[in-house]
Amino acid sequence: MTTDTELAYGLRADLPVGYDAALTLTREALAGRGFGVLTEIDVRATMKKKLDAEFRPYVILGACNPPLAYEALSRELPIGLLLPCNVVVYAGDEPGTSVVAVIDPAQQLGLTGRGDLEPVAAKVRSLLQQVLESTRAAAAASHPTPKRS
Amino acid sequence: MTTDTELAYGLRADLPVGYDAALTLTREALAGRGFGVLTEIDVRATMKKKLDAEFRPYVILGACNPPLAYEALSRELPIGLLLPCNVVVYAGDEPGTSVVAVIDPAQQLGLTGRGDLEPVAAKVRSLLQQVLESTRAAAAASHPTPKRS
Repeated sequence: MTTDTELAYGLRADLPVGYDAALTLTREALAGRGFGVLTEIDVRATMKKKLDAEFRPYVILGACNPPLAYEALSRELPIGLLLPCNVVVYAGDEPGTSVVAVIDPAQQLGLTGRGDLEPVAAKVRSLLQQVLESTRAAAAASHPTPKRS
Repeated sequence: MTTDTELAYGLRADLPVGYDAALTLTREALAGRGFGVLTEIDVRATMKKKLDAEFRPYVILGACNPPLAYEALSRELPIGLLLPCNVVVYAGDEPGTSVVAVIDPAQQLGLTGRGDLEPVAAKVRSLLQQVLESTRAAAAASHPTPKRS
């Protein structure tokens, strides 16, 4: 069974599909909610290259909704320090499972202490929650939970 | 005169050099403190392309200290939502001036609420402060403040 879990700083979902499928579904869900992916960090490859260390498949996607980013930057110029909004996808502990998590922009942009940015953060938060829910639903549809007899 | 200013979520310095020079100096300072630049967002180009909107020269650099990132990820897997650490460089309001700002990792990673990450955040914070100071000093050296008579 898939469940959503609150993080202190975001929201995550455990998916019953492998990493590659989860990444594809996440990209589709982001595009469907108006997010461009401006940056992408392959954590596993980076750790291997920089430290010769092993790490599970893990990607950090920097997602940006251009009109909302423009609004935030126009109000608070240095807010690029807190952009873009990250979405991570990584392999779960069990084969054929994965995790997707989205940042909570209300927490992240809240670091500015600016109340006038709260409506912008709330809009992005709502869209990212939809991305998570959409990814979760698509993963469940592509891989129905087997009935236990 | 250049001054450093505390942001609620970072530290910034006003530089007496233009955007291109500031970006070069910032890259050098990051490399000198062990940071790789994993991501780079040209905000001006992105706003032009996505919204046909004008924006000042502005870049968001995603800086990563691999050993410290590895330590953070090993303790708190979803913390990729709060990585890498951003450094922004943008053109100042006056020609020949620019601004560089670094995130405060103690604030950003503090969103996890995990006390065991505080030492990691403090290390990164110290290194980023050195990056800012080094950039500020190099900018001042390359462009001495003209004496007013």
